[in-house]
Amino acid sequence: MALWTKDTKVLIVGLGLIGGSYARALKKQGFDVTAITRSQSSIDYALEQQIIDRGFTQVCREAVSHADAIIFSLYPSALLPWIEEHQHLFKPGVKITDVTGVKTCILYDIQKVLRADAEFIGAHPMAGKETSGVESSDEKIFTKANYIVVPTDKNTPEGIAWCEELGHLLGVRKVTQLSPEKHDEMIGFVSQLTHCIAICLMTCKDNENLVNYTGDSFHDLTRIARINDRMWSELFMLNQSALLEQMDLFMEEFKDLRSMLAAGDVEGMRGKMQLSTQRRALFDQSKGE
Amino acid sequence: MALWTKDTKVLIVGLGLIGGSYARALKKQGFDVTAITRSQSSIDYALEQQIIDRGFTQVCREAVSHADAIIFSLYPSALLPWIEEHQHLFKPGVKITDVTGVKTCILYDIQKVLRADAEFIGAHPMAGKETSGVESSDEKIFTKANYIVVPTDKNTPEGIAWCEELGHLLGVRKVTQLSPEKHDEMIGFVSQLTHCIAICLMTCKDNENLVNYTGDSFHDLTRIARINDRMWSELFMLNQSALLEQMDLFMEEFKDLRSMLAAGDVEGMRGKMQLSTQRRALFDQSKGE
Repeated sequence: MALWTKDTKVLIVGLGLIGGSYARALKKQGFDVTAITRSQSSIDYALEQQIIDRGFTQVCREAVSHADAIIFSLYPSALLPWIEEHQHLFKPGVKITDVTGVKTCILYDIQKVLRADAEFIGAHPMAGKETSGVESSDEKIFTKANYIVVPTDKNTPEGIAWCEELGHLLGVRKVTQLSPEKHDEMIGFVSQLTHCIAICLMTCKDNENLVNYTGDSFHDLTRIARINDRMWSELFMLNQSALLEQMDLFMEEFKDLRSMLAAGDVEGMRGKMQLSTQRRALFDQSKGE
Repeated sequence: MALWTKDTKVLIVGLGLIGGSYARALKKQGFDVTAITRSQSSIDYALEQQIIDRGFTQVCREAVSHADAIIFSLYPSALLPWIEEHQHLFKPGVKITDVTGVKTCILYDIQKVLRADAEFIGAHPMAGKETSGVESSDEKIFTKANYIVVPTDKNTPEGIAWCEELGHLLGVRKVTQLSPEKHDEMIGFVSQLTHCIAICLMTCKDNENLVNYTGDSFHDLTRIARINDRMWSELFMLNQSALLEQMDLFMEEFKDLRSMLAAGDVEGMRGKMQLSTQRRALFDQSKGE
C-alpha cells in the first residue's frame, strides 16, 4: 500500500484534544476523516466544525473497514483490548499509529497480537494543552512540536516512512526516532518528571495568597500543575521503573545542591549554575530562540 | 517631604536591567532621573535612549545631593557599604528604596546605620528577564508584576505610602506588604527554590539532543535555568536558612510522591494531582486567566 495520497482514508479513534487536532490538521489537507469516539456531542461538534466527514459512537464495520490509516488517541490501556476485539474489521494492509505517551508497555503487546497484514508503528507527538476535549483541539499545537516515531523490529521501512510522513503532514517541528526503551526513559525525564515537580510545588505549601507574591518563575514551573489525574496516574504507572529512575536522578542532583548551600560552597553552586546556563543556552539556540 | 510630585528628583544607583526599567518607567511619567552606574557605556546608551537626564560613573555630591528619591539597584552586599560611605551626601528628608531579592540580611543593618533624617523602605518588584543590562531594560516588565513593600518598625506610614506609590507609578499588577522574614520565606519558595529546580533539571542529565525530544513542560520548567550565577549564588547565601527550609519542604513532598509511585498507590497519586490542579486553578483565576 502506498504512502499518504489524497485517496488515503483516515480513521481517528478517540476524538479528544489530540485526536481532534489530528483531524483538523488532516481535514485541512483534504483527507477524508472518520472518527469513532464515545461522546455523541463530540461528534456533533466535530461535524459542525467540519473537522471530520463522519463520526460513530460505536465500533462497526462501516467505521473501520474502509480505513487505510488509523490513528489511535485513547488512554494507553485501552489500545490492546480494542485491537484484539476489533482488528477483524481492518482493511488488509492498513497502517496504524497512536499518540500515546508511553511505549514499551503497549507496543510489543500490540504488535504480538496484530494481524500479519496490518502494521502498527508507534508515534508520540509531543504536543498538548492544559485543557481537554475536541473543543480545545487545534492543529497549531503541532507547529513547534517534536514528533517521535518509535519503531521496533516488527516494523518495515515503508511503515516507518509512512509514520514519519504523518508527522510532516501535521507540520511538526522535527521528526525523530527512538526505541521504545529510549522513548520511555526520555518521556520519564522531560515530561513525567517535570509534571511530578510541578505537582509537588503546588502541594508542598498551602498559601492561597501566593498569587500576590509570585513572579514568572513560579508561574512557569507550575503551569503544568493542572492535570488530568486519571490519565497521568495511568501514564506514571505504565512507565513506573523509568520514571522512578528519573526521579532519583533529579533528587540526587537536588540533594547535592542542597548540601553545597548548607556548606556555603559558593564555588560549587556557581559551577552548577554555569553548567545549567550553558546547557540551556545551547537548548535555546537549537530551538531557534 | 511630600510624596511623589512632578518636582521629585530621582536618583537610580545601578543602571542595569531593573534600574534601567525603573528609569524608563519614571522618565515616561516626566520625572527628572539621574543615574550612578559603573559603566560609561550604560550611561551613554541611557542618555541616547533618553532613559535618564544625566549619568555619573562615580558617586559625587552633584549626583546625590539633589535627590528626593533614591532607588538602589545593586548587588545585595553592595548596599550597606555604599550607604555607610556616601550617606553624608544625602539631602535631608530623602526617601530611599531598593529592588533587592532578599530582605532580612540587608534591611535591618541599613536602617541601623542610616541618618535619622533619611528613611529607607525596602521593596521588591518581582519582575525580571533572563537577559541583563540596561539594553535589556523595559518598563513593561512591571505590568504584570507583583510589588512587595517590606516595612519594619523603623518605617513611617508616610515612607510606606511613598514606597507603595512608586509601585503604582511603575504600573505593577499588585502592591502588597510583607515583613522581612515573611518576604524571605516567600522568596525562598517562589523564586529561589524554583531556580534550584530548574538548575538541577539541566545539570542532572547530559543530553545535547534533548531539544529534539522535549515538549512545552521541559521548556517551561527550565526557562529560568539560564542565570547570573554571581548574583544568584549571593542571593542564595544571603537567604540560606529560609531557602534550605523550602528545599526540604519540597523534597519531602517529592519523596512522598516517589514512594506512592514505587508502591503503585494510584489513589494517593491522584489525590496529589487533584490537589495540585485545584490550587493551580485557583491561582489562575486570581491572576485573571
